[in-house]
Amino acid sequence: MTAFDDLMAFQHETEALSQVSMRLGWDQETMMPRGAAHQRAEEMAALESVLHRRRTDPRLGDWLGAIDDDLLDETGRAQMRHIRRSYTRATRLPETLSAEIARVTSRAQGIWAEARAADDVAHFLPTLREVVRLKREEAAALAMGGDLYDALLDDYEPGATAGALAAMFDRMRPRLVGLRERIMGSGRAPAPLSGHFPEAGQMALSREVATHFGYDWRHGRLDFSVHPFTSGSGTDVRITTRVDETEPLGSLYSTLHETGHGAYEQGIDPAYGLTPLGAGVSMGVHESQSRIFENQLGRSRAFCSWLFGRMAEVFGTAGAAEADAFYAAVNRVHSGHIRTESDEVHYNLHIMLRFDLERDLIAGRLEVEDLEEAWNTRFEADFGVAVDRPRNGLLQDVHWSVGLFGYFPTYTLGNVYAGCLYQALRAAVPTLDADLARGHAEPATTWLRSEVQRSGGLYEPAETIRRACGFAPTEAPLLDYLDAKFGEIYGL
Amino acid sequence: MTAFDDLMAFQHETEALSQVSMRLGWDQETMMPRGAAHQRAEEMAALESVLHRRRTDPRLGDWLGAIDDDLLDETGRAQMRHIRRSYTRATRLPETLSAEIARVTSRAQGIWAEARAADDVAHFLPTLREVVRLKREEAAALAMGGDLYDALLDDYEPGATAGALAAMFDRMRPRLVGLRERIMGSGRAPAPLSGHFPEAGQMALSREVATHFGYDWRHGRLDFSVHPFTSGSGTDVRITTRVDETEPLGSLYSTLHETGHGAYEQGIDPAYGLTPLGAGVSMGVHESQSRIFENQLGRSRAFCSWLFGRMAEVFGTAGAAEADAFYAAVNRVHSGHIRTESDEVHYNLHIMLRFDLERDLIAGRLEVEDLEEAWNTRFEADFGVAVDRPRNGLLQDVHWSVGLFGYFPTYTLGNVYAGCLYQALRAAVPTLDADLARGHAEPATTWLRSEVQRSGGLYEPAETIRRACGFAPTEAPLLDYLDAKFGEIYGL
Repeated sequence: MTAFDDLMAFQHETEALSQVSMRLGWDQETMMPRGAAHQRAEEMAALESVLHRRRTDPRLGDWLGAIDDDLLDETGRAQMRHIRRSYTRATRLPETLSAEIARVTSRAQGIWAEARAADDVAHFLPTLREVVRLKREEAAALAMGGDLYDALLDDYEPGATAGALAAMFDRMRPRLVGLRERIMGSGRAPAPLSGHFPEAGQMALSREVATHFGYDWRHGRLDFSVHPFTSGSGTDVRITTRVDETEPLGSLYSTLHETGHGAYEQGIDPAYGLTPLGAGVSMGVHESQSRIFENQLGRSRAFCSWLFGRMAEVFGTAGAAEADAFYAAVNRVHSGHIRTESDEVHYNLHIMLRFDLERDLIAGRLEVEDLEEAWNTRFEADFGVAVDRPRNGLLQDVHWSVGLFGYFPTYTLGNVYAGCLYQALRAAVPTLDADLARGHAEPATTWLRSEVQRSGGLYEPAETIRRACGFAPTEAPLLDYLDAKFGEIYGL
Repeated sequence: MTAFDDLMAFQHETEALSQVSMRLGWDQETMMPRGAAHQRAEEMAALESVLHRRRTDPRLGDWLGAIDDDLLDETGRAQMRHIRRSYTRATRLPETLSAEIARVTSRAQGIWAEARAADDVAHFLPTLREVVRLKREEAAALAMGGDLYDALLDDYEPGATAGALAAMFDRMRPRLVGLRERIMGSGRAPAPLSGHFPEAGQMALSREVATHFGYDWRHGRLDFSVHPFTSGSGTDVRITTRVDETEPLGSLYSTLHETGHGAYEQGIDPAYGLTPLGAGVSMGVHESQSRIFENQLGRSRAFCSWLFGRMAEVFGTAGAAEADAFYAAVNRVHSGHIRTESDEVHYNLHIMLRFDLERDLIAGRLEVEDLEEAWNTRFEADFGVAVDRPRNGLLQDVHWSVGLFGYFPTYTLGNVYAGCLYQALRAAVPTLDADLARGHAEPATTWLRSEVQRSGGLYEPAETIRRACGFAPTEAPLLDYLDAKFGEIYGL
């Protein structure tokens, strides 16, 4: 056994324990009895404490010091890159802080769900204040004098900085605002779908569509949760959705979104299982897969024409009189409150709002007491309507309750990457529209698997996208796609 | 912090991690995608390895050496008794063996399920051979020259020995055989229930009955599994059942059985949560709770009279024309193949069969190749009918696949304890029959909670029963109860 072999054996066990943590997280959101929340927080804290000790184990330092990366092959060097990054981050975090964050966020998530159900911001704020305080502490320990927010962002998108993202957002915003204004001034206002769409039919359709997009049920399952998510890597990758019987698109496109995340994890080379390369390389790349499944493929005119017919079969109505009206309803641009129900034009404005607020929270420029007012003011300015109730505003997302600060901007980065990939995909799969018009996305998802998903953590995030597309990722393809698509729908 | 405080803090984290292992086990049987089995085995092995290192941590030895139990209160001394016993057992087991057992049994359970579904003994035997080999190794490491089987038994029933159990079985067997023969010669043969009992109704009724028996849904849930079980302690105690639409009693009484196990865990003093006292004290005492729920209460004439009416409401038929016939059907004595569907008279004969076979396997007097023949021969001798297919014989129970050797006899010990407790309960709750005739068992289950369940691991198993009953447990009350009950039903 060389030091590298010893290190990889140790890492294998750590990865397995991380997967256990995934299972617990999934259970908490889908199956756990309500009264078990406090004990579960203790269980999560104990496991997080074990993981933290492993991630900071002095033997890791010894192995990392003993291994000459230049003597390894490409895969080995990539493994080392991940392990070195993780070790550096972990050794900067005190174990007590790590365990406290696990305990507090586990509890906070339950309190957030109660507050959301009751539309009661005050019920959530004391806990959120505690989470923000702990995340500031975490950021300070990680940043070592650098930017606090960048230190958190780096955990989700290695190599990205708030400055570079803000610059990209600045380039995107005028075009998005311009597009939005032209749409709102177009005089066209497609009707939303109407009708009743029973839960059982929605779930059956969700399963069917996930299957057509290549989701592997032998290694996954679909359940309900308050907020849809994907959990797990390797051969156990589970997705969730939520259902509203008056509005079938929310559930269906949530499922397609999570199917993209799930297909990414399921599509990684099995040889990387339970190693640092065996999971999606960053949240931005992850989101590129969920977004291209959901939007560029799922909300295409071709796929919508199939979906229109299939929904009519399943529910007796697709909720619109004809395929054109259905496609316009699926892509209806509206100044709605909920990020996850947002259209492709407004979506990135939701992200920019959260990005700015959470940067201010972490920097200490904004206090939790003032957050709701800041949210509501900014929302009205950007979207032209007021927040009507907290569950449609500050309480809509689970992220902050579980300590995900620095995560939101990766959604827009994912959209940007999806725009690039879609341009390359159209060139690589000329039958794309014909496939989608039959409800089948497998030629497209097979290309994504071989060009993006299969490599797992082998390359850095931006390099992963560059290799698939043949060019360095920029925001231009996404913006061009949006202009063309919505220009056509709204006759601009 | 004293050494005792340090020890209890360490133990708290260990108990929390043990609960994590419970969640994983539950998930594996109820929710896990089929293709995740191999990865799950790695996850379980990693967690088991962590737990084993904690259970053998040298600091435990230091703390145990530094603490003078005589200076502690009764609770503290009981905690120490559990921790010392666990440490002694754990330090005798090599970590590699412990991890290998976790890995092999996790896989073996899936193979057993496949073999059972396909009625294919040969598919299971190579894995079972491996499990037996590992359990012999485990027993040898634990026994240190003593009896191998006793060493395994001690894990489930501290203080019990195979010799003492065999002696008790020898006293019980003639009376059970005599009762069985009188019943079979009585000329009475109550008809089983007939009809169709849809799954949804069975599950609704199972939930209703569990509620009436005091199961706490805030801290538990009911799902399907191949083999019903109870999982977890403290505030997260889950039960499972299985449903056959042609035979409603199997599901209902399985649920009642697991409700007894679950109520025990839920009934333990919350102050003992995530400590060694916070779980049922032994499998025998656990089984006393499941058995008294299922049999002495659930199969009583009084409760059956309520159930007869309720089933007629739920299903349109109770499967029998009148309450007397229903009660006789519920308590029908028949030489059936399946232990979990067995009647109270034959049940302990099932146990004695398994007890003798597994003692011989562990002692090396019987090889796995010869197990099916040994099972079938013994079964025909004891029950008067032949085994018709492996799933009705050797493949019916999950236990051996997951390494549970030394567990079966605790079922009969539980029956014996239930007999004792029922005698005491009738004296303590004079309204018992009237309560049960209204479908309500809560006065009885409240007595069990305060007299047996609440104390958790505070007293040794036999002492737990003695304190509740006021006398040292013997087999006589169970046998007297069986003679009286079945004498009346069969007119003996």
